[in-house]
Amino acid sequence: MFAVGATCTACGTEYGLGRIYRCELCNSPLDIRYDYGKISRGAFDPAGGSRAEGMWTHRELLPVAPEYIVSLGEGRTPLLRCPRLGERLGLASLWVKDETRQPTGSFKDRPLSVAVSKAKELGAKTVVTASSGNAAAAMSAYAARAGLRAVVLVAADTPPGKLLQMCAAGARVVRVTGSVSNSIGMAKAATKTFNWYNVTTTFENPYSVEGDKTVAYEIAAELGWRAPDWIVVPTGSGPLPAGIWKGFGEMQQFGLVAALPKMVVAQAAGCAPIADAFRSGGDIVTPWPAPQTVASGINDPLVGYSEDGTYTLKIVRKSGGAAVAVSDEEILRVTRLMVGTEGLYAEPTAGTAAACAVELLRRGTIGPDDEVVVVSTGHGLKQPFVGTEELEALPEIAPSLDALAALSLDN
Amino acid sequence: MFAVGATCTACGTEYGLGRIYRCELCNSPLDIRYDYGKISRGAFDPAGGSRAEGMWTHRELLPVAPEYIVSLGEGRTPLLRCPRLGERLGLASLWVKDETRQPTGSFKDRPLSVAVSKAKELGAKTVVTASSGNAAAAMSAYAARAGLRAVVLVAADTPPGKLLQMCAAGARVVRVTGSVSNSIGMAKAATKTFNWYNVTTTFENPYSVEGDKTVAYEIAAELGWRAPDWIVVPTGSGPLPAGIWKGFGEMQQFGLVAALPKMVVAQAAGCAPIADAFRSGGDIVTPWPAPQTVASGINDPLVGYSEDGTYTLKIVRKSGGAAVAVSDEEILRVTRLMVGTEGLYAEPTAGTAAACAVELLRRGTIGPDDEVVVVSTGHGLKQPFVGTEELEALPEIAPSLDALAALSLDN
Repeated sequence: MFAVGATCTACGTEYGLGRIYRCELCNSPLDIRYDYGKISRGAFDPAGGSRAEGMWTHRELLPVAPEYIVSLGEGRTPLLRCPRLGERLGLASLWVKDETRQPTGSFKDRPLSVAVSKAKELGAKTVVTASSGNAAAAMSAYAARAGLRAVVLVAADTPPGKLLQMCAAGARVVRVTGSVSNSIGMAKAATKTFNWYNVTTTFENPYSVEGDKTVAYEIAAELGWRAPDWIVVPTGSGPLPAGIWKGFGEMQQFGLVAALPKMVVAQAAGCAPIADAFRSGGDIVTPWPAPQTVASGINDPLVGYSEDGTYTLKIVRKSGGAAVAVSDEEILRVTRLMVGTEGLYAEPTAGTAAACAVELLRRGTIGPDDEVVVVSTGHGLKQPFVGTEELEALPEIAPSLDALAALSLDN
Repeated sequence: MFAVGATCTACGTEYGLGRIYRCELCNSPLDIRYDYGKISRGAFDPAGGSRAEGMWTHRELLPVAPEYIVSLGEGRTPLLRCPRLGERLGLASLWVKDETRQPTGSFKDRPLSVAVSKAKELGAKTVVTASSGNAAAAMSAYAARAGLRAVVLVAADTPPGKLLQMCAAGARVVRVTGSVSNSIGMAKAATKTFNWYNVTTTFENPYSVEGDKTVAYEIAAELGWRAPDWIVVPTGSGPLPAGIWKGFGEMQQFGLVAALPKMVVAQAAGCAPIADAFRSGGDIVTPWPAPQTVASGINDPLVGYSEDGTYTLKIVRKSGGAAVAVSDEEILRVTRLMVGTEGLYAEPTAGTAAACAVELLRRGTIGPDDEVVVVSTGHGLKQPFVGTEELEALPEIAPSLDALAALSLDN
């Protein structure tokens, strides 16, 4: 284990490893530091080891002692070239990083595998998370695999498919009234009072962000050790774009990639605190008190931890990228186009990335020949966007060829 | 492409490649033949190539010309050691081959990737499938990726999550009254009348079974090029166990594995045509006219194609394995145990494998120290087994620590 400590991303205060969360002085996210001189180049290569090792093939770059790893073979998701979707959207070189292929169906399995492993290393008995759904589903699965007690605090309007998933794994699920920020505040308070270990992934748990980092290694390796022009990421508070950015920075430091990607934070118009600050030219992200979007995974008001958004905005600017928001209507249109043209069935949150890429193309920020990677963060099975009215409209016939012919399906 | 023809598995009649389905003389499944002398040993190794290649890293062993491959990076699923589940079930060496990690959430992505690729190679414009749900969801995705028109014939009681998935991908979905056998008969008739290409995976499309074969290469490679003692597979008509058996046979022929695994066909008591024939000592499988089980993926009466079951039974016997059935109650108990002890959230059909392993352990067929691989065929998100009554019972609290403490979640 080569992690040696943590540093505040805003004020630089240093912390030792242990049960650390945010900066105690300024409430900003912490960043895990490593003794990079001891890490081998081979640690970056996702091709090594067995498939069941998953992202832990990069264990030298993750902040957990190997004997505590709790894994379901997460990571090693494919990077898929999408020519048919690209043609429809006007992007000649479009790739989808398909994170729907994770054990619980979303990218959250990466940060939760790390955070639950760390919980085991730190001797925790109960882990707690507050989440819009996917992180809690992931946490429930990893806690089950580790044999830890799991407490999940979710917003009252969490999609039922995700709740069923948590219940099946035996987590203690509690709905908390109001937005996910209420749940996050509760998890933080409960951590102190009940001696639980908090694995909430809005930068609350600094180890978890290191799991997000592994997306970068996989993208670079699949592209032959280089960065694409743009990486577009559906974003609530921002650990995924922050982790990807950190990963590319590490690879550049090791001489594995020459250039860095421009990072795009993709948000929904109904919950766009980072895109709003970016548009107005400011450096500080402020909360978005009454969020409302179909993209439930990024419906995060940042109340009580808007410093997370500020940190993410800083990364966007440093990378020369952008933060942008699109309407729910456009999110649903593009999400459906992803599965209709490429068979990639994602939840609306995930479709936000491709929808925002289209918006930046329209504005001339992204060029039609730029190489664009969109991260598809969660599976369509988790939050279907086809309405039950479409199911009710499906034809039902007796087993007769005439009845089938009458439907004129070839037209 | 090293496939050279097909042979009837029962009467030995030979066929050329093309739009072939079952044996025209005896209605039994066809088996694709290869010019094995031209295939390299490296063709078996799943470690080669990029992650996005998926199972097509084995392209020399698949019956499609490489330029027609339609892929979503399927395959390369992890083989996970499951000590906590094993302890609860009394199996000291238990592995789960996690096929829930496929693009559409079930193992069917393997056979459908092959069959839709073949459709493209054969110049088909419309593909049709009859299915209990997972194969149709897979077909819809691959047809979308290939730009082919997709017609899906499903039983009227197909789980809604799977129907939504097909609709999202733009397939023309038709419910056919009665069991899945009605849909299968219709697909067969429609293929002739409308010049559609039939990709139904109950051995109806002989190319598709070759996709199932790749599971064997991955299991053997992850175990260090050997077979486990037992491979337990949830089974309707049997292309998955047949494919796995064929794969191990190929590897033995190439000197890559010494011994072959014993194959177990896992069925539900409410639909057990193969287990029933095995128990009675017969060689012929007969239809099971009124099937009824929660394991919707294997709720297949085999009406009109019971020869498929007979072929599968022959493989079970040849391997020294068994066919066995368990109650829905036991299926649900073990499916829940999988996610509760290991975080592996599977649909009830998938849990049938582990439940049948337990039954064979109880009978003394499987020993407690035998190495057992169960194939988890489909994701829990596709057919949740937790009832909505559990969701309604979840506590909802105001964001107050006292309210949380009152729930006594640490007990």
